[in-house]
Amino acid sequence: MTEATAFVPGHVTGFFTAEPAEDPIEAGSRGGGLALGDGVTVTVRPADERTVRLNGEAIEIDAVERVLSALDATVAVRAETDLPLGSGFGVSGATALGAALATNAALERGLSENELVALAHGAEVRAGTGLGDVVGQARGGVPLRLEPGGPEYNYIDAVPARGRVEYLARGELDTEDVITGDTEELTAAGERALSRVVREPTMDGFMRASRRFAREADLLTPEVRSVVEDVIEAGGDASMAMLGETVFALGTGLTDAGYDAAVTEIHPGGATLE
Amino acid sequence: MTEATAFVPGHVTGFFTAEPAEDPIEAGSRGGGLALGDGVTVTVRPADERTVRLNGEAIEIDAVERVLSALDATVAVRAETDLPLGSGFGVSGATALGAALATNAALERGLSENELVALAHGAEVRAGTGLGDVVGQARGGVPLRLEPGGPEYNYIDAVPARGRVEYLARGELDTEDVITGDTEELTAAGERALSRVVREPTMDGFMRASRRFAREADLLTPEVRSVVEDVIEAGGDASMAMLGETVFALGTGLTDAGYDAAVTEIHPGGATLE
Repeated sequence: MTEATAFVPGHVTGFFTAEPAEDPIEAGSRGGGLALGDGVTVTVRPADERTVRLNGEAIEIDAVERVLSALDATVAVRAETDLPLGSGFGVSGATALGAALATNAALERGLSENELVALAHGAEVRAGTGLGDVVGQARGGVPLRLEPGGPEYNYIDAVPARGRVEYLARGELDTEDVITGDTEELTAAGERALSRVVREPTMDGFMRASRRFAREADLLTPEVRSVVEDVIEAGGDASMAMLGETVFALGTGLTDAGYDAAVTEIHPGGATLE
Repeated sequence: MTEATAFVPGHVTGFFTAEPAEDPIEAGSRGGGLALGDGVTVTVRPADERTVRLNGEAIEIDAVERVLSALDATVAVRAETDLPLGSGFGVSGATALGAALATNAALERGLSENELVALAHGAEVRAGTGLGDVVGQARGGVPLRLEPGGPEYNYIDAVPARGRVEYLARGELDTEDVITGDTEELTAAGERALSRVVREPTMDGFMRASRRFAREADLLTPEVRSVVEDVIEAGGDASMAMLGETVFALGTGLTDAGYDAAVTEIHPGGATLE
């Protein structure tokens, strides 16, 4: 037993559906997102009592607690991230997945990669804090979730692309409020967006489908709408991160529109031990 | 249209089955391997005639030709690698997959990641030069191919592990000779190896299953057997790369046994554009 560290990319969702199921590992969402170089680094070491810290502060993250309980782990979890919380970057899912990978290594639990992803995905679904971030973070790149659920159930393709990504986080939105409400229209819009990107699996197709989804699912806040419009006006490509008061843009889109944006990039690989 | 570059990790197979099928994208193998940081970098640019160079030399690689024909691509392909050829590192598959990713980007062909992986996998199977390298290289890490074929058909898990890998290549073996011969015993041995690693998805379990497979499938050459024994004797962990006259070892296994080995590491991510 020793210390172990995992890195999990952030993940912004461009469009999605809600796919409930009895079994949380079968439940989830279809949709598309970007895995980001800005992510969460999670270090786990055996300890006398269970503690979870995020950027130095004690925190309770339901999905992480569920992962640790399932692994019967009395460990100290230390997560570090530059990403803002509650803003649509999948920080809770990333911390849960990182905790699963690092705890498995630190305590030699002997689970496979897919088993750990399924564990973190199910924990996140039960916690109500995300439906597709964990499996997108496990894949990396620009994942297109064609079938929902954990690794045994889902089917993931991807847009083959790399490049700089900028983001601007203006505040929090509550994922749980949206995904536990009436999701019929949202899911119909998500299905249309996914069909469009499957027909045209390029970054251009991805961004256009994301913007149309945000409009059709009626999720655009006035603040986000105005920033996205500024980026388009300046000749760039941007949309809203689902679900946060957050705009993400390709290349130098936000900077060109005069915003002081954070800079990262599409992260080609998935979550991994360090 | 512009120049594009892709990186594809090398891939050593520890154990495998042969799974023929009418459709080459459905055919392939089950088994386990290591994706390696030493890989193939493939650059593609539009050109007046089709040329393929590997480390500066003109070369004809059947799987690459098939990929370029399927993409209707008149391009110059430049592949660079430190890996030895014909030694079990999947260089032909890596070059085919890199050519698919880079050509799709350079000529804006608009295919998805899975479509490109399926294309390269099918080309490699038809060429008879590999059954599972391409899909292992697309996944990265320590892929366990639980179901054969391209992305639409296969199911891949992985051993969650990182670390240094050493290798010693002593000569070529012809993959085509083995995989087009009588593969019944080989496949039975491969199934047993895979079951063992599924029960114990750790590097320790992986290496033990690989050694047992090499013995049971009667693929160990005297030279490889002797080097593997030396590594075990020195307290390390090694096995044979399928299919090459090649030994791979974890950590400093070959060095500790007194061999002048090449050093690389488990590559966590899969093939990607640069």
